[in-house]
Amino acid sequence: MIDYRTLRIALLGAGSVGSQVATLLLEHSDELAQRVGARLVLSGIAVRDLETDRGPGVPRELLTTDAEELIVGSDIVIELMGGITPAREYILLALRSGADVITGNKALLATHGPELFDLAQQVGAQLYYEAAVGGAIPIIRPLRDSLAGDRVQRILGIVNGTTNYILDRMDRGGDDLESALAAATELGYAEADPTGDIEGYDAAQKAAILAGLAFHTTVPIASVYREGITGVRAEDVEAARKAGYVVKLLAICERITDPETGSEGVSARVYPALIPRDHPLAAVRGANNAVFVEAEAAGSLMFYGAGAGGRETASAVLGDLVSAARRHVIGGPGVAESTQADLPVFDIGKVSTRYRVSLSVADRPGVLAQIARIFSDHGVSVEAVEQSVPNAPSAGIDAAERRSGVEGTATLVIGTHTATEAALSATVAALAGSESVVAVQSVLRVEGE
Amino acid sequence: MIDYRTLRIALLGAGSVGSQVATLLLEHSDELAQRVGARLVLSGIAVRDLETDRGPGVPRELLTTDAEELIVGSDIVIELMGGITPAREYILLALRSGADVITGNKALLATHGPELFDLAQQVGAQLYYEAAVGGAIPIIRPLRDSLAGDRVQRILGIVNGTTNYILDRMDRGGDDLESALAAATELGYAEADPTGDIEGYDAAQKAAILAGLAFHTTVPIASVYREGITGVRAEDVEAARKAGYVVKLLAICERITDPETGSEGVSARVYPALIPRDHPLAAVRGANNAVFVEAEAAGSLMFYGAGAGGRETASAVLGDLVSAARRHVIGGPGVAESTQADLPVFDIGKVSTRYRVSLSVADRPGVLAQIARIFSDHGVSVEAVEQSVPNAPSAGIDAAERRSGVEGTATLVIGTHTATEAALSATVAALAGSESVVAVQSVLRVEGE
Repeated sequence: MIDYRTLRIALLGAGSVGSQVATLLLEHSDELAQRVGARLVLSGIAVRDLETDRGPGVPRELLTTDAEELIVGSDIVIELMGGITPAREYILLALRSGADVITGNKALLATHGPELFDLAQQVGAQLYYEAAVGGAIPIIRPLRDSLAGDRVQRILGIVNGTTNYILDRMDRGGDDLESALAAATELGYAEADPTGDIEGYDAAQKAAILAGLAFHTTVPIASVYREGITGVRAEDVEAARKAGYVVKLLAICERITDPETGSEGVSARVYPALIPRDHPLAAVRGANNAVFVEAEAAGSLMFYGAGAGGRETASAVLGDLVSAARRHVIGGPGVAESTQADLPVFDIGKVSTRYRVSLSVADRPGVLAQIARIFSDHGVSVEAVEQSVPNAPSAGIDAAERRSGVEGTATLVIGTHTATEAALSATVAALAGSESVVAVQSVLRVEGE
Repeated sequence: MIDYRTLRIALLGAGSVGSQVATLLLEHSDELAQRVGARLVLSGIAVRDLETDRGPGVPRELLTTDAEELIVGSDIVIELMGGITPAREYILLALRSGADVITGNKALLATHGPELFDLAQQVGAQLYYEAAVGGAIPIIRPLRDSLAGDRVQRILGIVNGTTNYILDRMDRGGDDLESALAAATELGYAEADPTGDIEGYDAAQKAAILAGLAFHTTVPIASVYREGITGVRAEDVEAARKAGYVVKLLAICERITDPETGSEGVSARVYPALIPRDHPLAAVRGANNAVFVEAEAAGSLMFYGAGAGGRETASAVLGDLVSAARRHVIGGPGVAESTQADLPVFDIGKVSTRYRVSLSVADRPGVLAQIARIFSDHGVSVEAVEQSVPNAPSAGIDAAERRSGVEGTATLVIGTHTATEAALSATVAALAGSESVVAVQSVLRVEGE
């Protein structure tokens, strides 16, 4: 048996991912030692409460509540606690005490990434975060290294499994949002408080991380436009399906041109969008994730897999751990994050896409002309109009009442040519104020064409 | 303007990929310098003939026929000539003279990989080869780094664009092999001599590379079982489609157990196989490539994109170039290939799959029983039998002749349960020798279930 040198690994957090990391580290100890050229010794697992904060299979004797002591004595620190405090302080401490750090903490990276990367660079340590986006899917490394000589134009990512599960159920089973969410909760795909997922906060954090990496630019989380899926109705999904689209919550990172000045910048945004049924992302079912990347030379690439799950995400953490450990064995500094491009991050108003606007309108002559006029007044060109059969008037309204001016309503779906968000939102505001429009039911963007 | 240090890049070969690498290097010079922290100067391009061996856009003044002089004076050597000689000698020379090497030469890696990797490790140089498999698709780095802490169980790869184009055309357009190949040739997807692609040699080289990487084991090209697509008939594709499958040429790398001894080993093989229509690989159309990876913790992952094309493959080369250049800037040795596991590579006979065997049989009573008996005698369990309408007897045969004993034939498709290749090939040999069997029309394996 080879007498390997030893690397001390500290684990912060023993939840679903942390406990799997601990299990795999212990189970595959020999194989990993062989692969790395050093023995990876789990020197301790920091938790808040020794009794309650411990996933299945985590050895009791490794637990400690003294995270700081554990961190200072370690070569590599794996942070899987989540949240901002004290995760941020612990990572800063680890970097300052010379350890490399592995984290899956997307919220922290999206809000304090630059601070952490700057410190890592200063002290010559390395910060790994493959687990922060796309669970088990290798996406950070391909973007940072494999595409480093190319120019990424656009990323369309299905990066939240909960919302993809819900939208897939609505698409395939005809569920409405409420029942699809209930099913997701029951199956453990959605948390008790699903806000972070269904309102798009989780996807927005991932969009900030991906955009920063793809465009070598600092993308603050506050600059990521965000819309969740709570406004997506069963009718929208059904209408999309009939028109050859599927609704997906997308994290979009795009190199765009300012429509006024012509200068180059980037956009990061999250919203439910229609994508064509024959787009590779349309086939991403259930709680899976996928990231579709368009690069200047490489063309279209897609990375697909399980976006969550303790064991799956632990695989990404262990990949980072092997990289970090090899760096310790062979010496030499790691790769610094490259944010030298620092393109401006544009507001959503400068983004252009096509739209499908669903309106409930008064069912009377002249309404369509009036509505078409509102679009053209705002410079938004209409490509197609679908008018559904007029909505049946409520049962209590008899013929006499109808003659006397109580109108039925109809649903109009207007598909536009490419327009800026600024023009579209002005159009929508005008539509909402028009006496012909009973309600603006939904505004969905079209991506991936 | 920052005064960057300079790295001298030598390019060997100016074909479709080489000329695109040269073009991108010159076009994106400033951006790459910023990203790497060093200016990447293309110091020369070695070709055999200054007049004829030059792709579009390659500056004449950079060309040289003295490859050795060019190599010895360079920091990083990019080999894109293909073939074994003199590519092998040039790479050995480059490594010995202290350069890092980037290559897209799958034939060389599959046959002389260990020699090259050993020398690189000895001299502390690095050998990059992302472009060797899957064109622009990042697959080498994810397997080597991202999944380094996991245990890969199986890889199913569509790694040859030419054959995928042909099979896709047969599937979607009902073409036979000949006309699909003619179309592929006309569109430039197939070379004038398509043998390397359609006989599976190209895919076998990639299988050897992927298996070596995934299982940390040396997998000689001679140990890769190989069957091309020339035996795939329009009828097979059609029958597969009706049964819910699609035919794809797969490169398969699998961790398997010796059915006799129970010891662990690996299998690398290439053949046309049936995969279920709802498998993510089934949706890989045209000349695209995709690599589907099943790992113990990560679960199923898929990497998808353009598998060939000069510009696309150049993207992978440039990604490697940035990695190599960063290593020069920040110092320190790179990552050594890890072949420490060195599992035995098993013969195809030890592999188990399901099969669909298509037989032309005499159309008379008792034949089915006889054939079923041959399967069971060899320990292969039959799952399903589809008998097509008896083939029409040829037009010249009249009723009198038929009565006199000239029989028609029928097509039988036998689906089996899982069996070893050894058992199956013994069965097929017995079938071929049976008087009831006119011909064994095709044997297709089922994968991805």
